[in-house]
Amino acid sequence: MKMNAAILWDYGQDWSVEEVELDPPKDGEVLVSFEATGLCHSDHHIRDGDLVAPIPLIGGHEGAGIVQEVGPGVRDLKVGDHIVAAFLPACGRCRWCATGKSNLCDMGAEILMGLQPDGTFRRHARGQDIYAAIGLGTFAPYGTVPEASLVKIDDDIPLTRACLLGCGVTTGWGSAVNTADVAPGDTVVVIGCGGIGSGAIQGARLAGAEKIVVIDIVESKRDKAFLFGATHFATSIAEGTELVRELTKGVMADSALLTVGLVEGQMINDALELVSKGGAVVLTALAPMTDVTPVLPMTMFTLFQKRLLGSLYGQANPRADIPKLLSLYRQGKLLLDETVTHEYKLGEINNAYDDMLAGRNIRGVVLHDH
Amino acid sequence: MKMNAAILWDYGQDWSVEEVELDPPKDGEVLVSFEATGLCHSDHHIRDGDLVAPIPLIGGHEGAGIVQEVGPGVRDLKVGDHIVAAFLPACGRCRWCATGKSNLCDMGAEILMGLQPDGTFRRHARGQDIYAAIGLGTFAPYGTVPEASLVKIDDDIPLTRACLLGCGVTTGWGSAVNTADVAPGDTVVVIGCGGIGSGAIQGARLAGAEKIVVIDIVESKRDKAFLFGATHFATSIAEGTELVRELTKGVMADSALLTVGLVEGQMINDALELVSKGGAVVLTALAPMTDVTPVLPMTMFTLFQKRLLGSLYGQANPRADIPKLLSLYRQGKLLLDETVTHEYKLGEINNAYDDMLAGRNIRGVVLHDH
Repeated sequence: MKMNAAILWDYGQDWSVEEVELDPPKDGEVLVSFEATGLCHSDHHIRDGDLVAPIPLIGGHEGAGIVQEVGPGVRDLKVGDHIVAAFLPACGRCRWCATGKSNLCDMGAEILMGLQPDGTFRRHARGQDIYAAIGLGTFAPYGTVPEASLVKIDDDIPLTRACLLGCGVTTGWGSAVNTADVAPGDTVVVIGCGGIGSGAIQGARLAGAEKIVVIDIVESKRDKAFLFGATHFATSIAEGTELVRELTKGVMADSALLTVGLVEGQMINDALELVSKGGAVVLTALAPMTDVTPVLPMTMFTLFQKRLLGSLYGQANPRADIPKLLSLYRQGKLLLDETVTHEYKLGEINNAYDDMLAGRNIRGVVLHDH
Repeated sequence: MKMNAAILWDYGQDWSVEEVELDPPKDGEVLVSFEATGLCHSDHHIRDGDLVAPIPLIGGHEGAGIVQEVGPGVRDLKVGDHIVAAFLPACGRCRWCATGKSNLCDMGAEILMGLQPDGTFRRHARGQDIYAAIGLGTFAPYGTVPEASLVKIDDDIPLTRACLLGCGVTTGWGSAVNTADVAPGDTVVVIGCGGIGSGAIQGARLAGAEKIVVIDIVESKRDKAFLFGATHFATSIAEGTELVRELTKGVMADSALLTVGLVEGQMINDALELVSKGGAVVLTALAPMTDVTPVLPMTMFTLFQKRLLGSLYGQANPRADIPKLLSLYRQGKLLLDETVTHEYKLGEINNAYDDMLAGRNIRGVVLHDH
């Protein structure tokens, strides 16, 4: 089938919305219509070339939609099912899926390279094969994707909100609930109030944190931060550090969740200073995948027993956690409507990323035409 | 009382064994005779000036002995009791002690500065006050130390072996059992086969690790490593990495325990490469407390969800864990006799450290004359 999709032809260039030919599903694949896609910083990192992904590529990895056609061997989905496309697949059979760590599924490594699991392409434009961001390519109204990447959800959930569970909100929520293991009464710092941050603040709140200090340089995010569950807000690391020192009488926070899209070396050091003895600094942002060179004060680890923890997709098991989070959304306990601050058409995608870089969004979402 | 003790008068100088005046115990303090003290790398780091400690100072923080006199307010010890001097105290009342994290006890910060908890001195030489390493100063046949630092042990345990539980062996054991949380069937890498390493290998073995790959540049430690529980031995990180890759069919290790006394930036990167997705790198060595500057590949954390974990005293609760470990020693399950490779007199302490630096020891121990 033919459709319009946003393609990155060369690093540093704008997204080009143009006609793409999409192949039907092969074994274990599903053709879905994407109703909406979130605009995650990671796609912008691909555009910048600091998140390694082959091009030309259709961007987007945070989508929700409806099953249109199932390929041979697809077992759990049928035409008409509503789905979230999880940015990491869960094959259900590898050692990671088998031990409750499906975010580390071995199929993820293949899909991250932008190909189908069988190593071939389903997308073509200008006479050549086109990769799909994280095997999904949700910057398009349709996608032929592995069944392993899809999570069936209830029909009553708006797909324009459900899409946020495909990456950002789930990552943030899990970074608090699973990785930092926030406990009732904790003091938690969330650095960055974007798509991941909105999930992290809410994860900390739902896990019973008493004090949630949000740090974001964009002052206008203050109200939203409080809505998500922040108890305090600061616009600089220095201000936030002073605040945490006062609030905890010098003990400092139980955990600090680094949710910003651009992590520099110094930010890791700052976050290590924000947490108490034994405290955890959690790294969530997928990018930049370039190296950072923090001057790591070894005493932070060896004398104060601090911990630096990666958290991929918030250590979530998408098939279990996405329905659970949507149930919390239905009950009004997880706010998603408030996370989506702007809605765009696909043709506006470059403007949408300008908004994101300027800090005007919590999360922007593209609504697809079909 | 008068005694001979090993004093560091200036950074970089040799230990000077000379007469020291020791004051009797004040409130909450105990006068103990130290029968033996382990020679830990951390004291050498104090000597080098890269572990910050005030001087002049009596070294030593890994001791065992017998209670000679108790000060007012001492509740749980009486004259004649056998004790291990734990390098970190447990006051029993701070938020860390109250939550099963007594290795983080707030009293530790004071004692690390080499003073008694009341901020005064009990040791004097050449007409001036003398600090004691980590409040203990076990490079002396006697010490006036806080009750909080002492753990009562059974009388049948040789004090020349029990002293190892005061720091190195407990730290290594706990880095595997508590911090890395080694599980049956795991593959564990232990980098460094010294005092901490000997405990780490045994902790991994006792926790049921299937493959324990020990990396030490000193080839002659191979037999001892196997005795402690190693299943494989390599003399370089490169060789060890290749071995782990083969043994795990490319999955890599569940955890890597960095037990060497000198951690450089590159070693952290190497250890991150040694572990699988979701794997843990544990940092145990107290020193150098100088900063290191690893070129941290962010993908290790954000894409492969690896973890960099500090482990102070192996996250042990000395009052519970030292008796438990000595029970394992009595049953022949924890080897301590094999860890002590050399015994010295206090007057030989500088030669003893030469032996350590040359890699001739697993752990050297000084036996005190009284």
